[in-house]
Order: sequence, then structure tokens, then C-alpha cells
Amino acid sequence: MTHPESPESTPIIVVGAGVIGLTVAFELARRRIPVLVLERDHVGAGAAGVAAGMLAVVGEAEHETAELADLLVTSQRAYPAFVRELQHASGRDVGFVTEGTLIVGLGRDGEQELRHSQRAQDRLGLRSSWLTGDEARALEPHLGPRISAALLAREDHQVDPRALLPALAAATEALGGRVLTGTRVTGFDTTAGRLTAVVGVHQGDDRPFAIRCEAAVLAAGAWCAVGLAWPAAPVLVRPVKGQVVRLRGPAILRRVVRDTQVYLVPRRNGELVVGATMEDVGFDAAPTAGAVTDLLWQARLLAPAVYDLEIVEVGVGFRPAARDHLPTIGPTDVPGLYVATGHFRHGILLAPTTAVLLADLLVDDRMSPLLDRFRPGRFEAASRTAPSVDSR
Amino acid sequence: MTHPESPESTPIIVVGAGVIGLTVAFELARRRIPVLVLERDHVGAGAAGVAAGMLAVVGEAEHETAELADLLVTSQRAYPAFVRELQHASGRDVGFVTEGTLIVGLGRDGEQELRHSQRAQDRLGLRSSWLTGDEARALEPHLGPRISAALLAREDHQVDPRALLPALAAATEALGGRVLTGTRVTGFDTTAGRLTAVVGVHQGDDRPFAIRCEAAVLAAGAWCAVGLAWPAAPVLVRPVKGQVVRLRGPAILRRVVRDTQVYLVPRRNGELVVGATMEDVGFDAAPTAGAVTDLLWQARLLAPAVYDLEIVEVGVGFRPAARDHLPTIGPTDVPGLYVATGHFRHGILLAPTTAVLLADLLVDDRMSPLLDRFRPGRFEAASRTAPSVDSR
Repeated sequence: MTHPESPESTPIIVVGAGVIGLTVAFELARRRIPVLVLERDHVGAGAAGVAAGMLAVVGEAEHETAELADLLVTSQRAYPAFVRELQHASGRDVGFVTEGTLIVGLGRDGEQELRHSQRAQDRLGLRSSWLTGDEARALEPHLGPRISAALLAREDHQVDPRALLPALAAATEALGGRVLTGTRVTGFDTTAGRLTAVVGVHQGDDRPFAIRCEAAVLAAGAWCAVGLAWPAAPVLVRPVKGQVVRLRGPAILRRVVRDTQVYLVPRRNGELVVGATMEDVGFDAAPTAGAVTDLLWQARLLAPAVYDLEIVEVGVGFRPAARDHLPTIGPTDVPGLYVATGHFRHGILLAPTTAVLLADLLVDDRMSPLLDRFRPGRFEAASRTAPSVDSR
Repeated sequence: MTHPESPESTPIIVVGAGVIGLTVAFELARRRIPVLVLERDHVGAGAAGVAAGMLAVVGEAEHETAELADLLVTSQRAYPAFVRELQHASGRDVGFVTEGTLIVGLGRDGEQELRHSQRAQDRLGLRSSWLTGDEARALEPHLGPRISAALLAREDHQVDPRALLPALAAATEALGGRVLTGTRVTGFDTTAGRLTAVVGVHQGDDRPFAIRCEAAVLAAGAWCAVGLAWPAAPVLVRPVKGQVVRLRGPAILRRVVRDTQVYLVPRRNGELVVGATMEDVGFDAAPTAGAVTDLLWQARLLAPAVYDLEIVEVGVGFRPAARDHLPTIGPTDVPGLYVATGHFRHGILLAPTTAVLLADLLVDDRMSPLLDRFRPGRFEAASRTAPSVDSR
């Protein structure tokens, strides 16, 4: 195996070529800061390669996090410009579809949930319209007969993560940054308590490398707490397994359709992405009978024509989740070392805002108040004041 | 691409290395008749590679065929000796499991169906025992709580087709026969109305071949009516698509468990085979969302632990079916040219008997009365006497 040489030093190193790492790198490259992304596998090998790419601020009620609303709304508003600049810089299309999302309800409980979603959209100033079942079926003729009401969330768009990530890598490199794959980071060198270098090995031949840098950002998603000699306070993040079924066949939907159980995301290439489970089972990468049954059964209630589509793939991804389900973004207790992970179900949507706020911090030493509640040290502080609080 | 040379002539050629073709070849080789099997793809590429390998005489009521009972019972009785000889000749294990089959019923309709099965088993002199739900769960602790009764069919065994087919090929070659893969038959030469040679091309380089022979057996399963210049009356056979899900995980069953909707076949290698659909859609090889949902949903009713098993594969096979769902076995109107196909859902079980009866015919010119109703010409005869009968 041959691979490009790693440089001896670079101002900023990003660890992880997922959506967060690559968007941070893209943002730094746009600001003309030399940046190097190190990825042990390949671009898109992590959670984003499996993600549906829904850009939805208001999710299911039980996963709503008021603390995140500001960041989500800011990111959703920023998306059109982000996509425009990214497509310009990369020369690639990222499958940005602005048809909105149809959140559907089946029966009385479903409608109750829809009203809750509508109030949440209103509160956040997001435009949405209430539709009867028949009005929804007029928009999307393949919706099932049991759908009794729907909410058209006009600002919930979608992007194709499998197009987005390569575009981010291409744009970063077009602007002078570098993305090295097959390069596994194993630790961080410090001198007098300050970060001085990132060390690791090239996959394949295990040849070691050490690259000096002024700053490094750990953006390794669910793997932030795995296989790293980490000089700072632990990053508390765990994997939450998500299974996604990819179907193919005649196009049956124009826009994202979802309810509280399942989402259906039509891709321009003819795929229909059906997701996703939430499973707290560690890094178990097996696609399971139960998950596929549950997802497809529910998908069929929303759009019976799903029945005849071809199963192309059952994907498994691991979302990075902190104990409070909020992202972890900001400086660690080791000067020069930063973290950006824990985006859970919102990595694709939150990437542009995360990147801008982190770049402000890295380049201009400007800490946005938006990041206050996402600081890496917040659990340590909590456990100091309430030592019995730790559960999972 | 290189490949072994085809011979210039051989006494008997079998077209198709599926379970029927290979078992015929094995039987001929055992009788010291030089035989050559020509297969366009690889051993096990057809329906048998997807089949579950249940050796069940009494199936669901709606697929029962009284005309077939004699042949099925004869074949089931012959299986232990067939397996013993095959394993001896090949030196391989074929996964023959003699734990019987548990046919289960859920609720009143299920029990009704079970009583029907029991009467059929009794009528055919096959041993079976009636069990309560709890008795069934005592035998198979992972059976679901909704199973209210079961029939233990003690003589319904199973074999692993993915082990059986390579063993048949190995045994045939050990006994002096030959199996040539990547060899596509395109037609049959005749002189004065009698078969003289089989012609075709080597896949890969399209190099043509013509092999002289005294007799040939078309055993190409659902493909008997596809892509062949055929000198005899048409072989009326169509593909019936079957989808099968292969799961893997901790062993949850010891023996085959089935109801009217689904079967669960545990393999010694840890797989659990869940099948199968019956779809009249031609050669459409796509695994579909609906089939997988239906199979796994029903499987979960029988054994809830299926939920957590890993999905390894969704297989698609094409059973060969004649209009009357009976096999087509015997001589065509071209002397020297024979057919063995149309075994529909019973190919694995019927293979040994088919092979013996066909070898009797080929070698000793002895036509068993058992084959009367399976003659290739039977549809032609029927349409002559009743020209309006043809539907499907």
C-alpha cells in the first residue's frame, strides 16, 4: 500500500473526516488557514455515510431539546448559503432538495403529536401548514389511506450525505487544505501541558507519523472515546446505533415524509431511505431482523407502495451521543486541543454552525455564547457539584 | 479466462448443475455410465442455492398435490440411504438433520390447518404427533406464546442445499463423471430426427463447442424455456420467484419450525433460513421490502427471538413450475433427448427419485409407471383433447 506523505507540520489538524470534521476543515480552508484532516478509514465511513440528511429542527417530541433550538434554527437558516458556497467551491452537487417535509399523523394519537410539532414550529418562527389527510395525499399521491392529517414543514429540507461528504473533502482541497485517509490517530503530544503534535500510524503498513501543529480538533464522532491516548479530561460520548434501509424503484415520493416512528427520504438517484432505529448496544454493527421489520412495516403504513421496492442495503451507523444528548464543542483543558462531537441525530444539520463557531474560536479566539452549554468540561463540573448524578 | 477442454463426445450429457441435474449425474456415475454436466454459471447458482432444504411430504393444504404423493413419499423414504451414499462417495457432510419438523398453529385457524396436515400425514402412513402449545415450547423453548398447538412431523427432515450441491458435484467426479461450469448450452443437434450432439459456448470468451452424445437430459430448472434452440415440443415451465432471508446469531431452534405462512430452518453453521415467498413475476431478481417484512413479521410470531438476529442475506430463487405444478420428467419427442424440470417447491426432496427413475429410463430403457403423469408431452395431449383448456 502506498499513500501520500504526511507533512511534518501544519497549523491546524482535524481528526476525523465525518461531516463535522470536514465542515470544520472546509470553513478553515475558506478562511485561508492551512488545515489537514486525518481519517483512519475513508471519507464518509462514519455516521454521516448512513445518515438520511434531513435538515429538520423540530423532531419527535421525545427527542426535542430546547437547549439546542437556537443552534438548530441558526444552522437551518445558514444551510442554503452553505450549500451554495460548498457547491461552488467543490464543483459538485450535494442533493439539496427544498420541497419541505411532510410530517404525517395516523389517527388521533398521530394528530396529537402533529399539533405538538406545529406549536414547536410556531414557537421557533418556522413556517408550517396544517393539511388534512386528503390534502396531504394531493401533494404526495402515494401516501397511505390511514394518514388522517399532516404538517407541511416548509423549511425542513434535505441534503444527500453521500454527496455532501465528498464535496466537503473536494472543496477543502480546492481551497488548499488536505484530507489524508487511511491515517489513524493514536494520540496527542504535549509540551508543558500544551498541544504540540498529533501522532498515529498509517493503516496498512503501521508506519508511524507525528505531525506538529498549533491546534487540533477531535471530530471522530462516536469513536472519540475509542483507541486514543487522550491528554485532556475524557470526552463523554457513546455510540447510538441507527439502522437504515435503502430501497430502490419507481419514485413514489417527492419530499421527505415522516411520522414519529419512521422517515422516508427520497433521493434524486431513485433511492428511498427509510430510517432509523435508536439502539444503545455499543458498536454492534449487525443489521437485525427486528429493525428491518419495524422500519419497513411502519414505512408501508405511510406509503403502501414501499412494498414492491427493492431492498438495496441495510446500513448501520453510530451516532455520537453525550449523556445529555447535546453536542460537545469547544476547547479542552489542554491548550490547543479542541473537540467537536456528540451531534447525535443532528450532525448534518449542525455542521455549518459548528464549523463557523469553532473556526471563530480557533482563528480569532472568539468564544460564542451559543457554545456555553456545549463545553467539553460540563459533565466534570456537574459531577463536582452533584457527585451522585452519574448514571449512564 | 481459461477453462478445461470440453470432450468431443460423451455418452450422456446433463444440462444444468442444479440439484436435479447433479443428482441425475451422480446416479449415472454410480452406474458407471460416463456422464458430463454442462452448467452456464456455477454449481448451485439456481434455485437450490437459495432453497431451505426441507424434506417435507405434507406441505400447506393449498399446495398439496395428491398426484405427487407417491413420488414424494418414495423420495423421503429413500433420503437416508441417498445421503449416506452421497456422503461416502464425496467425503462431505450435507447437513442432514433428522430432528423432524414442528408444524405450528396459532389460534383456531392454525389448529384447523394442523388437523388437516395430520390427516394427510396419517393417510400417507407418515408418523406425526399432536402437541399442545406448551408441549411444543418444551421441545423448542423459543417458540412464541401465541402458538397454541403443533404437529411434530417425525419424518420431515432437512438437508443443507449449499452443502448438498457441491457434494453431488464432487461425488459425480469421484465416480468418473465430469462437471463443466461456465459452459452455456445454446442448442441440440439432430440427425434424421435423433439427438446427436449438444452445442453451446464457453462463457467468457464465447468459444463455441459441440459435444456428440447418445442422450442428453435438460435439467435447467426455470431456465429450461429460455435461450435454447430446442428441437422438441416446448417445455412448459415458468419461474416462480421465492425470497428467503438468512439470519445469523445464537441458535434459537433445533429443528425446522413452520406454519402456513413461513418456515424457519436452523442450519448447523448458525444460520436460520426464513422463507419463502411465492411470486409470479418472471425472472425479477430484486429482493423486495414487502417480502422481507412479511417473512420476518411472521417469523417473529413463531419465535420472537428472531427479532435480534442479524440479517445476513436476502436470497432470491426461481422455482421451475409447470402449469399443473407437477414435475416434467421423461423422454421428449426427439429420441435421445430427455427432460427433468418443474419440481417447483420439491426439487431437493424429489431429486433422488427423479434421478433413479430417469437413469432406469436412460440406461435400461425402463419407464416407471410413476412417471406416467409427469411426461413432457402431457400438456400437448390435453390441449388436443380440449383445445380451450389452456389458461396458465
